[in-house]
Amino acid sequence: MMVLITYDVNTTTEAGEKRLRKIAKLCMNYGQRVQNSVFECLVEPHQMVLLKNMLIDIMDKEKDSLRFYYLGSNWRPKIEHIGANPGYDPEGILIT
Amino acid sequence: MMVLITYDVNTTTEAGEKRLRKIAKLCMNYGQRVQNSVFECLVEPHQMVLLKNMLIDIMDKEKDSLRFYYLGSNWRPKIEHIGANPGYDPEGILIT
Repeated sequence: MMVLITYDVNTTTEAGEKRLRKIAKLCMNYGQRVQNSVFECLVEPHQMVLLKNMLIDIMDKEKDSLRFYYLGSNWRPKIEHIGANPGYDPEGILIT
Repeated sequence: MMVLITYDVNTTTEAGEKRLRKIAKLCMNYGQRVQNSVFECLVEPHQMVLLKNMLIDIMDKEKDSLRFYYLGSNWRPKIEHIGANPGYDPEGILIT
């Protein structure tokens, strides 16, 4: 299933920037970074449980906002991109 | 229907910051700003056509990235929030 993960963190602080780097590195094991703090991850439900727990461990719950959007398995027609940096399809086909 | 709009812009430039302010102002007519550049908009299909055209007019297509995620009408169970700044339900109930 496709899960969109959006992460809001204050990157004007070094600690915030470091958390974003860690979140990005982790999410990119499961998919693509389509915007600076937006990740499209293709995961099985059991992987999502693990991923969520790891993300929660990295984030600062008092300061950062983490949102998950569950797009299901029929996710392709639900996503539209306009402008720079078109996202890459986690299954290998360019989304334009 | 619920449409998630994510907007990636370089806010280290004054022009980029201004575009983000305009995008935010426009999106907030249709829903909520749940993260710095993430908006959840509750729109009818005909409103979405108008909104998309207005967003395209504001953005710089060479520099900015705009993504739409169509979550449909049964969007509530598809969204999960963790951490700071919980988003507000565009229909009036707090999402926690």
